[in-house]
Amino acid sequence: MTQLPGQDDIRAAAALIAPHVHRTPVMQTDMLTEGMSLQVKLENTQKTGVFKVRGAFYTLLTQPVPEAGVVAASGGNHGASVAFAARALGHRARIYVPEIAGPAKIGLIRETGADLEVVPGAYADALKLARAFEAETGAMQVHAYDGFGTVAGQGTCTLEWEEQGLDADTVIIAVGGGGLIAGAMAWLQGRRKVIAVEPELAPTLWTALRDGPDAEVEVGGIAANALGARRIGTICYDLARQFGVESLLVTDEAIAEAQDALWRGLRQVVEPAGATALAVLRSGVYRPEPGEKVAVLVCGANPAPAVA
Amino acid sequence: MTQLPGQDDIRAAAALIAPHVHRTPVMQTDMLTEGMSLQVKLENTQKTGVFKVRGAFYTLLTQPVPEAGVVAASGGNHGASVAFAARALGHRARIYVPEIAGPAKIGLIRETGADLEVVPGAYADALKLARAFEAETGAMQVHAYDGFGTVAGQGTCTLEWEEQGLDADTVIIAVGGGGLIAGAMAWLQGRRKVIAVEPELAPTLWTALRDGPDAEVEVGGIAANALGARRIGTICYDLARQFGVESLLVTDEAIAEAQDALWRGLRQVVEPAGATALAVLRSGVYRPEPGEKVAVLVCGANPAPAVA
Repeated sequence: MTQLPGQDDIRAAAALIAPHVHRTPVMQTDMLTEGMSLQVKLENTQKTGVFKVRGAFYTLLTQPVPEAGVVAASGGNHGASVAFAARALGHRARIYVPEIAGPAKIGLIRETGADLEVVPGAYADALKLARAFEAETGAMQVHAYDGFGTVAGQGTCTLEWEEQGLDADTVIIAVGGGGLIAGAMAWLQGRRKVIAVEPELAPTLWTALRDGPDAEVEVGGIAANALGARRIGTICYDLARQFGVESLLVTDEAIAEAQDALWRGLRQVVEPAGATALAVLRSGVYRPEPGEKVAVLVCGANPAPAVA
Repeated sequence: MTQLPGQDDIRAAAALIAPHVHRTPVMQTDMLTEGMSLQVKLENTQKTGVFKVRGAFYTLLTQPVPEAGVVAASGGNHGASVAFAARALGHRARIYVPEIAGPAKIGLIRETGADLEVVPGAYADALKLARAFEAETGAMQVHAYDGFGTVAGQGTCTLEWEEQGLDADTVIIAVGGGGLIAGAMAWLQGRRKVIAVEPELAPTLWTALRDGPDAEVEVGGIAANALGARRIGTICYDLARQFGVESLLVTDEAIAEAQDALWRGLRQVVEPAGATALAVLRSGVYRPEPGEKVAVLVCGANPAPAVA
């Protein structure tokens, strides 16, 4: 069985990465759900626009980085986070992204000064080249969601939220490969109910909980470049089995509607993945019990904005 | 001399409006200014996307609203805030906006369900119709920046910031008619340095401090529909004389650059007015002393976003 991070690991990670990441804000609002107050953590304001920079810093701060630097293949967010952390810590970074990452995420990686290669085809093609680069140069490969350091780093998001007064019986989190929710489960240790939300078109954890950890899913839809992992991370799967998680699916239409609601209610521009957790409430797929306090993690912000 | 609100008024306002407004987040970040950490308050996440809803609620909660409801003329933000507060409190609202308010702000007012009239021409034409409506119906006119209740309400923004641990020697705030900064000065009572920032193309306070309180300025530029008051508010002017304020101007180019920086550093999409305070730092127009701690108020968010 894979080694699972615990509270001590996450506490250590939080102390180590604190000088490098944003402590992201928490708001209480009645503007997102009719007749109900909701707590949201705006992790979309994190450096690089996404929680992934937490795990990237923790990994690079705790593992020996070779002269050749780090290498990653990514739909976009992970690559940008690894490149950002590598630059901040003085390491070289080489990032492979598939063309479908889109101009916003590709631009974001380019800004970090990383050595970037845009690969024709899909994520698998980028990963193949990243592995070849790793084999050839000895560069360190950073996994997007299934590394011990990655999960411990993402867990600092929930630790921080509790320090900020997380006021909820139930915490709702979007799932791609499961790094963020794994960190939450590892920190919470079953102390609060956790709801995992995925697009119907990328039901990775949902399928694994039904068919077993080796299940592979087809992925597509509007959140695919962020939540489109074909296989759930082993760490996430093991933690979900250990602590239990309610796994729910939402449509792309519900995700787009929740994006719009985040603009109208809080003036936050988020990518589809960043609105996926909220979508489960607004669409009525999850209906809290009377008196149940719920909190939503807004996890990512990286569409291309048009600033008027 | 106009009656100036004091700390007790602002404390009372904060208690009264608390159930109706967002407590907006504060972040510490090194992503906005090279080699320096900065505290920002994201008042752009306020309901209706702008601080003005604070003064609107306080005014409507403390003054008798006639059967005919409330009326306002507005470049956009003020009208949306008055309409929002009126709806929440069960009053009728009639809002006159000039066409130059633009589709985002007009759409925002329409969403609140207010009785909206878009007026050909400029703000003065909208104001003329609003006054005629007031005279005819007895509706209550809510001033955009120079009312006692308006300033006391806007002052709650700085009170709240201090409760949240405002960590700054110097607070930087954008100025249009001066309601927001007047509230800040009334709350701070000279306890911290306050810097007033205006676009070079709308130098209302700057001109009044040079030529006297009756000075009228030409207004234009990219922030004109939010910061384009032709005359500074009397309350703002009197407080600026009493406590002292450093008045600085920035170019439209610097404002646009700061808008872009707020997206890149914090994933916040703001209107030009919302980036004007930050622009004074990024352009080097204001250079903090070594060790001087500065804080920036991000006050408004209402361009038309394109959510990708």
